[in-house]
Amino acid sequence: MSEMKRKAVVLLSGGLDSATTMAVANSRGFSCFALTIDYGQRHGLEIEAARRLAKSLEAERHLVLSYDLRPIGGSALTDDIEVPKGGLSEAIPVTYVPARNTLLLSLALAWAEVLGAYDIFIGANAVDYSGYPDCRPKFIDAFTRLANVATAAAVEGRGRFTIHAPLIKMKKSEIILTGLGLGVDYSLTASCYDPAPEGRACGRCDSCRLRLKGFEEAGVKDPISYSR
Amino acid sequence: MSEMKRKAVVLLSGGLDSATTMAVANSRGFSCFALTIDYGQRHGLEIEAARRLAKSLEAERHLVLSYDLRPIGGSALTDDIEVPKGGLSEAIPVTYVPARNTLLLSLALAWAEVLGAYDIFIGANAVDYSGYPDCRPKFIDAFTRLANVATAAAVEGRGRFTIHAPLIKMKKSEIILTGLGLGVDYSLTASCYDPAPEGRACGRCDSCRLRLKGFEEAGVKDPISYSR
Repeated sequence: MSEMKRKAVVLLSGGLDSATTMAVANSRGFSCFALTIDYGQRHGLEIEAARRLAKSLEAERHLVLSYDLRPIGGSALTDDIEVPKGGLSEAIPVTYVPARNTLLLSLALAWAEVLGAYDIFIGANAVDYSGYPDCRPKFIDAFTRLANVATAAAVEGRGRFTIHAPLIKMKKSEIILTGLGLGVDYSLTASCYDPAPEGRACGRCDSCRLRLKGFEEAGVKDPISYSR
Repeated sequence: MSEMKRKAVVLLSGGLDSATTMAVANSRGFSCFALTIDYGQRHGLEIEAARRLAKSLEAERHLVLSYDLRPIGGSALTDDIEVPKGGLSEAIPVTYVPARNTLLLSLALAWAEVLGAYDIFIGANAVDYSGYPDCRPKFIDAFTRLANVATAAAVEGRGRFTIHAPLIKMKKSEIILTGLGLGVDYSLTASCYDPAPEGRACGRCDSCRLRLKGFEEAGVKDPISYSR
């Protein structure tokens, strides 16, 4: 049956948002090609989570690319800068990875063009978004315009690219309830920026705080375990 | 003195166009941070050429990143698709690498943001451009818009990014004459898509044909050697 479905490339990080995004893409009838980039992030456990999720969410294919961003530096997620744990602030935090979503979408676009897919899904979120500039609707719009002038597929008229960011206006609790409604197993996801060596989440970084707050507001227990 | 200069990131492939672009950036007073991406291109000799050029053109730094695009596939430059040698045609050729310039500019943008640079140079060319969609002025414009919504640097008002494509409207012969005027040593450059094992250019692929035509029209002898 999957021959009949339209293909989509889904950026799958191994976190809660991208898992939900892939479930949404499935629910919209796409055949999902999951793309995971190992960019040298401290929380390499995400990559393992992505592999479990790709299987659980029945990806048509799962491509994991290792592109180490550490030589570029500039982020607490790839550098030896300490991950802040004092709570959320208004400023763009040091966990921001320069141009990360631009790069991730570029790779998704390249693969989509090769696959003959015109739909790309990304779990960007502008509500509980930690202040990252490349999680805003205007970023998604700018990338969509770019995709449709940058590629042979678009220029030759074979199709127009759509960048889907289905979570962009959802609160974390809405994301969780959406995913639960679609059967996502959140015990497979990893969100912590600085997990303990054995894998337990710290419970104190921005990502853990947003996640825990989301589950609390959703009135659901988070199935992963925390070291505090 | 280089403390006083504005920084620029220059995409340096090792080819004739990017060497000229870097010479132009130097001539405009920028302190150049050269970025080379080894994406698994068949002509790996380009990377060696880029190293020689970065030295010759006095790069402030030279960063070489190995991001293998072969798992994504879709191009004669990274796949086992034969490089065409029958002459230039109107269509977008199989040597097109999906979303390549989008990806290269994304990496340049990431590094620029870390360096505090707001100027990025790329040797894209829309005249003798082999029909690649991501070498057109509208692609450069779309990427510039994207850069200025995608980054913390732009959103926080530290600066606005400019993507410089100084060769975009030049004929190959004009590029060569510009570079010679700025002292570029073209014997250090590598352009061939399919060089012989010992490094000599084939003389028949699109890139060789454009280069040879350019030198001929410029009335200058190409200093590299060809296998025919």
